[in-house]
Amino acid sequence: MTASAKAVVLVSGGLDSATSLAIANSRGFECHGLSFDYGQRSVAEVAAARRICESLGVAEHLVLKLDLGQIGGSALTDTSIPVPEAPTTGIPVTYVPARNTVFLSLALGWAEVLGASHIFIGVNAVDYSGYPDCRPEFIKAFEAMANLATKAGVEGQVLAIEAPLIDLTKAEIIRRGLELGVDYGLSVSCYNADAEGRACGVCDSCRIRREGFAAAGTDDPTRYS
Amino acid sequence: MTASAKAVVLVSGGLDSATSLAIANSRGFECHGLSFDYGQRSVAEVAAARRICESLGVAEHLVLKLDLGQIGGSALTDTSIPVPEAPTTGIPVTYVPARNTVFLSLALGWAEVLGASHIFIGVNAVDYSGYPDCRPEFIKAFEAMANLATKAGVEGQVLAIEAPLIDLTKAEIIRRGLELGVDYGLSVSCYNADAEGRACGVCDSCRIRREGFAAAGTDDPTRYS
Repeated sequence: MTASAKAVVLVSGGLDSATSLAIANSRGFECHGLSFDYGQRSVAEVAAARRICESLGVAEHLVLKLDLGQIGGSALTDTSIPVPEAPTTGIPVTYVPARNTVFLSLALGWAEVLGASHIFIGVNAVDYSGYPDCRPEFIKAFEAMANLATKAGVEGQVLAIEAPLIDLTKAEIIRRGLELGVDYGLSVSCYNADAEGRACGVCDSCRIRREGFAAAGTDDPTRYS
Repeated sequence: MTASAKAVVLVSGGLDSATSLAIANSRGFECHGLSFDYGQRSVAEVAAARRICESLGVAEHLVLKLDLGQIGGSALTDTSIPVPEAPTTGIPVTYVPARNTVFLSLALGWAEVLGASHIFIGVNAVDYSGYPDCRPEFIKAFEAMANLATKAGVEGQVLAIEAPLIDLTKAEIIRRGLELGVDYGLSVSCYNADAEGRACGVCDSCRIRREGFAAAGTDDPTRYS
């Protein structure tokens, strides 16, 4: 890798993608942060994504507007579906149909324009085993498709999809991020965060996050409402 | 296939996707048309897509807003890049980075919500050999990825990506569409169409279309400006 290799880094405003950005930075990439304003319940996420990109440093940060609510089907985009307050089994209602596929596709388009060789995504198969598009086999299949989809692929350049957190526990992710100087107080994981980014403390995402800080043996900097 | 099997059909407003919709209808699918208002030069495309969906019949037609212009890199979304008026070699500047990947990804999300088993896309490898995401190997790789990305895939249901025009010439596409009753006067293929949907007659897309009608031995219903 040359010093100037570019990466598109998906930044959701949450803990995982903040860590993924810190890892991409630590590997010497010129990072281009990409976030989505996708009609989600939690507008606080985009504000958190901006704070994280500023704090960790990116070459630029692009927020794409994308109304996934028109497609429907998820508690995160359809306000008529309640976010559950207790752990659920199987694929949760907070799953947004094909979300990671859509986000990676737009990252792919931007990577092509930028000439970026890598796309970073903070998916994690350990805590989110219910989401089909968080599994390693999905990431590999997307990478194979991406290398057939683009000019760069046709011309023999390889695009890598990097999912550096995919097999880490939440506690391992937090410890890695703290080593790299991530300020998790800037991140918002809650599915029901208020406009100031304060977390509900009861949704699945809050629960996983709180247990992660406890398991990492470190203070939880989350602001609860 | 049962009588009620659902398909998401990408409808751009052009000749190819109109034919693809007619084929999906002829195969008995309940068709759900999906179009994109993606900041493209040609706003006439969306109006044409609406006319085509009405004329051929769909269960519903969804137009998703998606500002690909923020990503840039193509003459079709970036008005600072001129559309060429003569045939070009290699990958044309009208290529929109990862466009078919993005469109298929959103179709995948909608298919998941609808419980659709098929997605139709009117790509064609003969006339658009310069576009990497119009090749059969891309479609196959997308299908493989899609079946790992979704709840349906995890639960063992197979989602098929159908590209019924992929190895047809433009003349063959036109003859097939005419057999199925497509009114090509409703479609707009031009990269520079005016607000009323009149074609420039000189861009690559106009040239390919005109040559197609000539080769099919049928009248060209295109309205030129």
